[in-house]
Amino acid sequence: MLTFQLQATDPHSKARAGCITTDHGQIETPIFMPVGTAGTVKATHQYELTDDIRAQIILGNTYHLYLRPGTEILKKAGGLHRFIGWQRPILTDSGGYQVFSLADSRKLTEEGARFKSHIDGSYHLFTPESVIDIQRAIGADIIMAFDECPPWPCDERYAEESMHLTHRWLDRCIARMQTTEPLYGYGQSVFPIVQGSTIARLRRESAEYIAAKDMPGNAIGGLSVGEPPELMYEMTDLVTDILPAHKPRYLMGVGTPENILNAIALGVDMFDCVMPTRNGRNGMLFTTEGIINIKNRKWAEDFSPIDPAGISRVDTLYTKAYLRHLFVADEYLARQIASVHNLAFYLWLVREARSHILAGTFPDWKRTILPIITRRL
Amino acid sequence: MLTFQLQATDPHSKARAGCITTDHGQIETPIFMPVGTAGTVKATHQYELTDDIRAQIILGNTYHLYLRPGTEILKKAGGLHRFIGWQRPILTDSGGYQVFSLADSRKLTEEGARFKSHIDGSYHLFTPESVIDIQRAIGADIIMAFDECPPWPCDERYAEESMHLTHRWLDRCIARMQTTEPLYGYGQSVFPIVQGSTIARLRRESAEYIAAKDMPGNAIGGLSVGEPPELMYEMTDLVTDILPAHKPRYLMGVGTPENILNAIALGVDMFDCVMPTRNGRNGMLFTTEGIINIKNRKWAEDFSPIDPAGISRVDTLYTKAYLRHLFVADEYLARQIASVHNLAFYLWLVREARSHILAGTFPDWKRTILPIITRRL
Repeated sequence: MLTFQLQATDPHSKARAGCITTDHGQIETPIFMPVGTAGTVKATHQYELTDDIRAQIILGNTYHLYLRPGTEILKKAGGLHRFIGWQRPILTDSGGYQVFSLADSRKLTEEGARFKSHIDGSYHLFTPESVIDIQRAIGADIIMAFDECPPWPCDERYAEESMHLTHRWLDRCIARMQTTEPLYGYGQSVFPIVQGSTIARLRRESAEYIAAKDMPGNAIGGLSVGEPPELMYEMTDLVTDILPAHKPRYLMGVGTPENILNAIALGVDMFDCVMPTRNGRNGMLFTTEGIINIKNRKWAEDFSPIDPAGISRVDTLYTKAYLRHLFVADEYLARQIASVHNLAFYLWLVREARSHILAGTFPDWKRTILPIITRRL
Repeated sequence: MLTFQLQATDPHSKARAGCITTDHGQIETPIFMPVGTAGTVKATHQYELTDDIRAQIILGNTYHLYLRPGTEILKKAGGLHRFIGWQRPILTDSGGYQVFSLADSRKLTEEGARFKSHIDGSYHLFTPESVIDIQRAIGADIIMAFDECPPWPCDERYAEESMHLTHRWLDRCIARMQTTEPLYGYGQSVFPIVQGSTIARLRRESAEYIAAKDMPGNAIGGLSVGEPPELMYEMTDLVTDILPAHKPRYLMGVGTPENILNAIALGVDMFDCVMPTRNGRNGMLFTTEGIINIKNRKWAEDFSPIDPAGISRVDTLYTKAYLRHLFVADEYLARQIASVHNLAFYLWLVREARSHILAGTFPDWKRTILPIITRRL
């Protein structure tokens, strides 16, 4: 089973540094997890993830992996780690978020969620039990419970009913975990998910319900879905007051570098987001000097490194002018470089946060770095 | 200036092993040159070209680089090597082939070729002089003379007139080379191009004309444009009998692994072709065991390495089943892996050919390996 060692808590905020231990190795927190939707972090090689980006854990999407390549192939391969050639930890989401994003193509019942594949239009049913079974077959080190992620805004009554459904589904997920075994000889842990929209009363109730389950880690879902950042921070703040301090806390789908630093200050340990890769593929670079739209003409003759800090190999090997040229010419290498760079930046950011938490200088560092990395160059 | 050391000639064929020395380092021949059209070998990083693919020289396209990023930016960058972060030799074509491929969008005169940009429809003129100037600005170690590449089939009269035009243009290219200097402090050499379609009389005349120019290397153009392979070999054979033995010979745009081994046996030293990258992006893999269409269902549960010979890092890191999944899911990584693998295969092939030429075992090895690498798995 996964364990968590709390190594330091910042005296001036709720920020923490810790270490998660899994059978695939350790994860130093706070951590950012690159999103490997369909068994690949888009446009990056596995060796770039380890050597250049310094990723310690990646995320897989149950919905996508279930549809393609499918659980049978994953089982025959011996799990996702072996299928994709990745030796470090993997976390899988429950598929709930993707299914609920399908909107008109899914139907929700007490039993689970029936949905239509975006690939071939075929119908499928996800239940708390089937979603655990799929994640067992994927072989994720960290399995997410099946939850409903309500849209924002949503009325209080819907949010409350949805939260209770998520709680009932959680109990079924935990029961399924307890009556099944890992398939590949290493441990798998389930993280429950706090819901309750942006209603403080519901968030508190959900956090207390989730905390009482005493699982190895806990997640906060249903945020970063369109609400103002202040509400996201407010909900996170009150939830981290309730979730136990000696277990890792994962804020799902968040977010910008600013969101991440603010949530670290509120006691969050784990993050994932498609922003570094998706925005990177569109030419938006996060650098140690600020945010760059590399397609802009102003970079055409700028032969300085992509990021002089040299966080990853690509940063000093290639120049801004070259990367702009690659984007203008619509070359694959443009997206490859931007993806490696942005992910390396996100991992650098959480490593820096961690070292400042350990040194007791987190709030000062955060106050200094935020205006720099969020400015538009 | 570029020099060539002939190291061995196979006693049973015309195959040779040699070494080209440029100011950017040495090139062991026979050699395959990955095509880096617009300043990038598609879907590969520069460090993959050196470390995994073991490329010793890459090719750039004058037509593409002239249009984007343009010679002004390349000059300000200090040449293409510095612009793209590549320290080894670069050869540039003359742009002639691309311009003549534009068909209806270009007009040929004694002066040069007027053409319409495929990017913005603007009009441009390439002359022997301007094409040398552009390649000076790109900073290629090996500059190709401006030639007309006639279509195949073409009538004898057109082929003859076209050949004479190419010869007159060559004289103008050489004159321009002699009256201009390299821009970046290292030497640049021009290679003339033998034309003459598939007419033996013209090929002989052209080869004699080109050989008499005494340039540091010579190229054979106008082949692999639709003619039967036998004709291509026949023309190559008679041309290599005429081109001097102590200079490298470059067969432009060729070809399949079989074409390359056969042309090596005919005394060719240098090759380029988009086939490994273009076919790779479509899921066709050249391996040491045969040719694979990785999209085929038969590979869905094949968890063996992409190529057990492990020519490049990707070959044993990833499995056939995983690569097939990436192609089916249309992931960037599919094209990245296939490009690195196929290029590594081509470079392995010419390295093997070279070592067998040096060992005096080239014809036997060629006879053994050809049926293996050309079979469809």
